[in-house]
Amino acid sequence: MAQSSAESDSESAYDRLLQKYKRIANVENAGGILSWDQQVMMPDEGTPARSQQMSALSALSHELLTDDEFGDLLDAAEADDPTDEQADVLRELRRDYERAARVPNDLVEKISAASSEAIPAWKQAKAEDDFEKFAPHLEKHVELKRQYAEHIDPDRDPYEVLFEDYEPCLPLEQAEEILAEVREVLVPMIEDIRESDTDLAVDAFEGEFPEDDQEALVRDALTTLGYPWERGRLDTAPHPFSSGTQFDARVTTRYDDSDVLGSLFSTVHEFGHALYTLGLPDEHYATPLGENRNLSVHESQSRLWENHVGRSRAFWQHFLPTLEDRFPEVDATVEEAYEAANQVYDDNLIRVEADELTYHLHIVIRFELERDLIAGDLAVEDVPEAWNDKYEEYLGIRPDTDSEGCLQDIHWAYGNFGYFPTYSLGSIMAAQLFSAAEADIDDLDGKLADGEFGDLREWLRENIHQHGRRYETNDLVKQATGEDFAADAFLDYVESKYGALYDL
Amino acid sequence: MAQSSAESDSESAYDRLLQKYKRIANVENAGGILSWDQQVMMPDEGTPARSQQMSALSALSHELLTDDEFGDLLDAAEADDPTDEQADVLRELRRDYERAARVPNDLVEKISAASSEAIPAWKQAKAEDDFEKFAPHLEKHVELKRQYAEHIDPDRDPYEVLFEDYEPCLPLEQAEEILAEVREVLVPMIEDIRESDTDLAVDAFEGEFPEDDQEALVRDALTTLGYPWERGRLDTAPHPFSSGTQFDARVTTRYDDSDVLGSLFSTVHEFGHALYTLGLPDEHYATPLGENRNLSVHESQSRLWENHVGRSRAFWQHFLPTLEDRFPEVDATVEEAYEAANQVYDDNLIRVEADELTYHLHIVIRFELERDLIAGDLAVEDVPEAWNDKYEEYLGIRPDTDSEGCLQDIHWAYGNFGYFPTYSLGSIMAAQLFSAAEADIDDLDGKLADGEFGDLREWLRENIHQHGRRYETNDLVKQATGEDFAADAFLDYVESKYGALYDL
Repeated sequence: MAQSSAESDSESAYDRLLQKYKRIANVENAGGILSWDQQVMMPDEGTPARSQQMSALSALSHELLTDDEFGDLLDAAEADDPTDEQADVLRELRRDYERAARVPNDLVEKISAASSEAIPAWKQAKAEDDFEKFAPHLEKHVELKRQYAEHIDPDRDPYEVLFEDYEPCLPLEQAEEILAEVREVLVPMIEDIRESDTDLAVDAFEGEFPEDDQEALVRDALTTLGYPWERGRLDTAPHPFSSGTQFDARVTTRYDDSDVLGSLFSTVHEFGHALYTLGLPDEHYATPLGENRNLSVHESQSRLWENHVGRSRAFWQHFLPTLEDRFPEVDATVEEAYEAANQVYDDNLIRVEADELTYHLHIVIRFELERDLIAGDLAVEDVPEAWNDKYEEYLGIRPDTDSEGCLQDIHWAYGNFGYFPTYSLGSIMAAQLFSAAEADIDDLDGKLADGEFGDLREWLRENIHQHGRRYETNDLVKQATGEDFAADAFLDYVESKYGALYDL
Repeated sequence: MAQSSAESDSESAYDRLLQKYKRIANVENAGGILSWDQQVMMPDEGTPARSQQMSALSALSHELLTDDEFGDLLDAAEADDPTDEQADVLRELRRDYERAARVPNDLVEKISAASSEAIPAWKQAKAEDDFEKFAPHLEKHVELKRQYAEHIDPDRDPYEVLFEDYEPCLPLEQAEEILAEVREVLVPMIEDIRESDTDLAVDAFEGEFPEDDQEALVRDALTTLGYPWERGRLDTAPHPFSSGTQFDARVTTRYDDSDVLGSLFSTVHEFGHALYTLGLPDEHYATPLGENRNLSVHESQSRLWENHVGRSRAFWQHFLPTLEDRFPEVDATVEEAYEAANQVYDDNLIRVEADELTYHLHIVIRFELERDLIAGDLAVEDVPEAWNDKYEEYLGIRPDTDSEGCLQDIHWAYGNFGYFPTYSLGSIMAAQLFSAAEADIDDLDGKLADGEFGDLREWLRENIHQHGRRYETNDLVKQATGEDFAADAFLDYVESKYGALYDL
């Protein structure tokens, strides 16, 4: 791996470029381990050193990516009659390079410094329900991120440019249309559910579930779904996440004594992320062909396993006996388990606690607000009221406090604008992919009910995971499903599923 | 932390140099986290990615240290009328820089590649008791390390140069005299012990000790000794070690159901290492004033706690009740516990299982052999016989197999020559430091017996830890003890302790 300064002249520009990229990717992956450790293992007072270590690594990877030699090799490789596959890799490296090289180092540092100040301020503001304490930091982030977008491309809508940090190759216009279509269907559907008389078996999993037993259960679930323990591990983290590479993709979860479904679905969600990472080709480790496409596609994998597998009748046919073995006090039918797993929480204000339907309105609200913020159509001081108005309009509920309102999520404290939409886009994509998998795999539902998850894993590996960043988002979805990426499959799915559950 | 390329011209060369060094130290500390993770947390199949990540970080830190700008800033800072403290820091940076810059990158890579091949070969050779399988790798390492030493200084004994990788500022001649003096006393002393009729209470801790209970016990021990859990953690590793920084210094141990003293002393040993790291000044993190002096001094800290505290009567007066609470089947007097903790294993062939006395002969043997190897006075093929002859001469025992002989330790598979002596030098230094602490601290023995370890911790922090790399080894020892570093205190200690134990 170590790159000698005396490169062989016989190596092609493409090969030399890839060697340079590998070093960058390895530095970033090292940063990923440090971040995992910080969230899972690090003792409380380790922060000052850890922050410096992580800053040093990200500054180095930025410098390595933006140095002139990288740009020169990129030019040379592009001019050197690349194969189709090489051309796809070069497209990815060109995008990474341009985005990094156009932003001055001191702006990168300013954004990083602004986050370091904004995060504790956000924590305090949320704890004290005092938006004023966070407002100046949000203001600063909006200003810095506008500058950032302008450096990358002064001629385009800055929000579009910011969105590309998370979803680099799906047109924002398409994303916007998809989200608008989903909103138009979900708002009245949720209203209907609120007015419906149907009582779901929501108390099928009420009780006390000790943490150790929950851990044993989610380990059962991971093993059942096919998580390869020789390339992963399960730990506890306050905010569950997954991270790693195809050689070592770890998941985390958290436990609440009164909520066994919470740890289970959070684990199945992270399993989906990890399975994607593990399906990237070993031989392309630390190059674009061995890296994930982007956040939307990543989220499609987690949501597919969480919602289309974990919340299905078929999964509960298979898994309910395992759960009842661990927790003999649970005595539910498969139908009751299915209903409990799919309850719509029409009075919930908190995104991370939302069900499969209302979730997307939480996202749409943030998406609309941050678009307006970046465009200058919404002032920071007016965010709380605009937030509450939208919750009232779309979900029929109004937060009493900003802690439960516009202060609930950390993303803006990091200066992340354009991140939220990828959550919903991923769910919508999951429905389209799962529908295609159902068409391709003989009796998929029956297989899931029998605890046979291998065909689905394999379908995802072949159609999504193995390609890494080879194809852009729409091409990847089209190759996997035969259709353009759109909301249709998702809307069919929710209308059919929730129509039946709530007699709509 | 992130270093902008547009440095302020008003910053002094010294400040800019220190900023550059901080980045290097942070990259190395990041590598330390990756290494800890690899040994403690990483799933089995994570190795291919981890190796690349660690190679990338070490290549980067080497390049950052050896780049021309570092050298130029060093020249400028040295010429810029440094304060005494700055001059001490510059002495350390100069040494680091010269040693790194004089060795060509491709030799560094060759040594690293040779290790990657030698380590699995050594494992196989050891498992199969087949020295021939390891011999060509050892040959290669000897050759490469001779070249390495010649690049650094062609005019000096190459072994002396190699020794300085681990103990950079103690003359080899002094180390050699100390080890020879120790050998001359220990060889006949161990012979006397072998012939002695004294029966120690060696079965005071015989029994079955479940791993969970052992872990609870070593956690008790760490808490009792004053380990700050908010800056550390305890885990399990196949080869116990400690690593980290003053903000986060972790220890590991291992458990053997039949050997409760093994996990306890291994933990107390690593506690000593961690306490040193934790005593480095926070404000000098990632600079030489906030880094440990070297391996000898580090080992003096671990051995002081392991041997002079953990194996003392006073410690057992305090700790035996805790152990008996955890393991009610143990029923020993303090004197019996003390004897069991200090048994001399005169028929043991394995260094890592050796007692406080025979240990040093294991080291002296390796030291004498590797000196001869590097000097060309011993051929690789003759190592097994030379090894066995020395064991017979110094310890009166002869290995039946090379697995229990010259293949037992991994160090040579890494190409580490000159490392072993620091283990003994550390123990010898520990005796000198502890003797000085006894003179300075009122009734230290009584305090240890009462479980009051604070005064000793504080003495070590003031006299050793807080100085980082400010002073060279002899100056550090002299300031702490008033005497030159020598074997006297160690020899007094073992003669008095083991003379009494074995009625010599």
